[in-house]
Amino acid sequence: MRRLVVIEFLSLDGVYQAPGDPDEDREGGFAFGGWQRPYFDEVLGGMAVEGMARTDAQLFGRKTFEKMAAYWPNAPEADPYADHLNNVQKYVASTTLRDEDVTWQHTTVLRGDVVDEIRRIKEQAGQNIGVLGSGNLVKTLADNDLVDEYDLAVYPLVLGSGKRLFTGVEMRTLELTDSRTTTTGGVLLTYRPAR
Amino acid sequence: MRRLVVIEFLSLDGVYQAPGDPDEDREGGFAFGGWQRPYFDEVLGGMAVEGMARTDAQLFGRKTFEKMAAYWPNAPEADPYADHLNNVQKYVASTTLRDEDVTWQHTTVLRGDVVDEIRRIKEQAGQNIGVLGSGNLVKTLADNDLVDEYDLAVYPLVLGSGKRLFTGVEMRTLELTDSRTTTTGGVLLTYRPAR
Repeated sequence: MRRLVVIEFLSLDGVYQAPGDPDEDREGGFAFGGWQRPYFDEVLGGMAVEGMARTDAQLFGRKTFEKMAAYWPNAPEADPYADHLNNVQKYVASTTLRDEDVTWQHTTVLRGDVVDEIRRIKEQAGQNIGVLGSGNLVKTLADNDLVDEYDLAVYPLVLGSGKRLFTGVEMRTLELTDSRTTTTGGVLLTYRPAR
Repeated sequence: MRRLVVIEFLSLDGVYQAPGDPDEDREGGFAFGGWQRPYFDEVLGGMAVEGMARTDAQLFGRKTFEKMAAYWPNAPEADPYADHLNNVQKYVASTTLRDEDVTWQHTTVLRGDVVDEIRRIKEQAGQNIGVLGSGNLVKTLADNDLVDEYDLAVYPLVLGSGKRLFTGVEMRTLELTDSRTTTTGGVLLTYRPAR
């Protein structure tokens, strides 16, 4: 059974919105896009490279997919994230995306019941399935017990507004399996569902 | 200058509501009161005892004060928290509490401008001033640069609803100064304002 790993950059108040770029997601008037950039360091980078080596599929919600698909195909090839994201099998959960809207290579649109589709993909042979951002999808995944690991990078700033992860998720207990600090005051927390 | 230390128990999704008791705070229909209890351990207890030894005043918002004042005066005297909380100087920020409503010993009601009052108290000789819970007050303290340290105990459960700390706070960068894990999967994170 493949493992589904949710990876999120969070502010100390749990905001996951637009960590990478000012224009990544301005919904709700969010003006702090790119907030995670000053905190990127070799500890996070090392964990990301390790994680990508264990991952042969990425699953996205529609909004996150559209942002990523607009950026990564044109990113420098030498970038390890570009190499991974452009070449890995990608799934996007969307009932509205048309095939002709999807030009990012190796992408499959999941149009059926997303829970059934993901159960089916998890039963296929393969490595980990990664999820980046995609907060609405994470709620569905969490509520249906489809998440095997949460890798949360929590950074030392309070944003005070923005989309917060886990809003409306059903109550759920987890277990902490790893904890590291970055050189920039981040904490990298790994959880799995409580047994 | 005395240091103001904000101490919070948080779920992984940043909820600070009613950690200790089912009936502590049911506002918004919150049904998870007492969620922190299974996670209490000797690591947290040790840090709390150290913290209390450096603290000779506690500052509360009105709601948290009323919950605490209803509980601690009748708690077993041998309890180190009861000993501290009952005997320390207490301040409660409230324009509505009347003196006759306040029976918990060593309590002063701050009825003036809370920011001015707390600046004045911080300038007095003394040890640390602690703040427990009091989420609305924490917003005012944070936005007015009155917090010197945040001690956040983050526990491995997602509540999905409830009052979240830092909602509406102005954007603010911090520095991580300490990080420990508890035996129950909690992470004890200490922050100070970024210089």
